[in-house]
Amino acid sequence: MSREQRKNLDEMLRRPKPTKPQSVEEIRANFAAFMATMKVPEGIRTTPTTLGNRLGVTVDPEQDARPGIILYFHGGSYIMGSPYTAMSVTANLVNKTRIRSVSLDYRLAPEHPFPAALDDALAAYRELLDNGVEAASIAFAGDSAGGGIAVSACLMARDAGLPMPAAVVAFSPGVDKTRSGASMDSKMGIDPFFTREGFTLSDTMYLAGQNPNHELVSPARFADLTGFPPLLLQVGTNELLLDDSTQLADRARASGVDVILDVTADVPHVFQAFTGILDEADQALDRAAFFITQHLR
Amino acid sequence: MSREQRKNLDEMLRRPKPTKPQSVEEIRANFAAFMATMKVPEGIRTTPTTLGNRLGVTVDPEQDARPGIILYFHGGSYIMGSPYTAMSVTANLVNKTRIRSVSLDYRLAPEHPFPAALDDALAAYRELLDNGVEAASIAFAGDSAGGGIAVSACLMARDAGLPMPAAVVAFSPGVDKTRSGASMDSKMGIDPFFTREGFTLSDTMYLAGQNPNHELVSPARFADLTGFPPLLLQVGTNELLLDDSTQLADRARASGVDVILDVTADVPHVFQAFTGILDEADQALDRAAFFITQHLR
Repeated sequence: MSREQRKNLDEMLRRPKPTKPQSVEEIRANFAAFMATMKVPEGIRTTPTTLGNRLGVTVDPEQDARPGIILYFHGGSYIMGSPYTAMSVTANLVNKTRIRSVSLDYRLAPEHPFPAALDDALAAYRELLDNGVEAASIAFAGDSAGGGIAVSACLMARDAGLPMPAAVVAFSPGVDKTRSGASMDSKMGIDPFFTREGFTLSDTMYLAGQNPNHELVSPARFADLTGFPPLLLQVGTNELLLDDSTQLADRARASGVDVILDVTADVPHVFQAFTGILDEADQALDRAAFFITQHLR
Repeated sequence: MSREQRKNLDEMLRRPKPTKPQSVEEIRANFAAFMATMKVPEGIRTTPTTLGNRLGVTVDPEQDARPGIILYFHGGSYIMGSPYTAMSVTANLVNKTRIRSVSLDYRLAPEHPFPAALDDALAAYRELLDNGVEAASIAFAGDSAGGGIAVSACLMARDAGLPMPAAVVAFSPGVDKTRSGASMDSKMGIDPFFTREGFTLSDTMYLAGQNPNHELVSPARFADLTGFPPLLLQVGTNELLLDDSTQLADRARASGVDVILDVTADVPHVFQAFTGILDEADQALDRAAFFITQHLR
């Protein structure tokens, strides 16, 4: 990125830290307000829809769509966010691939702890298949917690005997709720978004007393990924979650999975949301779009 | 890959093992004969050239070339090979990027041990720069030992104060002559090309008594990659050299380098040479071409 881009990024990230504990409603409202500052490309069309038992948003590209569906899972630590808060990344991916996306409004903690979000994701995938969409024309994608959902929903689909989607793309996925990666310490103070305390807050809501040592909660530590479709992990080096991705890539390799670990230096969590601000964001999304296009039939 | 493709691959790899020690001349002739079975795309144009103090081959794409140069280093364990033995990968990369390549006929061991090949590579890069080619329009690429040369020549260029090339692409690079990666043992018998004994033979010729604990000999173990341009590593899981790439990716991340570790399951060393035989080969080269195109000005 240029010096100008670095300055603009730093300015966007300079948010006042809350001085007192926030309610879940305040957390969600603040997150939505921040994510609303991300640029959504013009020309895409969004349509409310239902999928499985949940609402969702269909995102169509500006140009004629190609066949296929990107089943998208937004981020937000499993406690906040919606298809709209992730619309910048989702819509750019849709425009760059020219493939329709359905972004799922899965249930959130603390009202609905693990495995509610994953159950919703699997139900959405089942409905696509039941509607006659071929697995080979579906990609799972998601950012942050949504990247974790993409991975864990794929594990659940495999274990349920469903056909595998064509590809899985995870942007800065959260895939280790044991929080044991070396980057949890080495990137402390470098990560502009996260702290160990912040994770403890959201993890407590999501787990609701359940064990983090579960392959669907912490797949980077406990999952056997045998049978997975090609997997693309994109992550920045300014992230507490960096080693969520490096560890998951290690496991994928050991399980005989095609896996690309795509690391961009000196950028924060889900930097792909900063299209139009960081060159790296557009370039990374271009590579993700290329990867999806390679694998979708 | 399909079952048919797997069968064809296995057939190509079923070569008789030599029953007695071979001379360097025999090793070189057998390698050239095997590599001549790889498909070179039609329509490319090859022209002998000189670069630095060495001969080389200019490879032009079938279609109109775009600006830029791929400085290519062939494989062959530093003791065998030529621009022609690597022509399948080089020419496919040229056609897919539509960028001209110059493939260098660097000096080989045992006649010319370390650092002769690297000196030739640096001299070639210097000549490009001296001829007014912008560093930002040059990519280094190479396979196997040539991937190692691409990495080490970039280190030498950095330390010489030269501008960095725009990108480095290494296919199954050999970047650890201490041979300490876990895959050196775990992939024994799975790798259809290499054995520890074979490496000892070529390493002895290349090092000629010099220490493998040198950052230009084993950059995956000893190099600080600070200041490197974006780096793409592609490797198969059926390789003794798998962890040469995983270790180099670890070091690149730690040095603040943009690095993509692109691992394809169940394919052998430099599987990109098997275009037209393995879908994975074309797909990987398509990704490599996309990466180069992203970074070259």
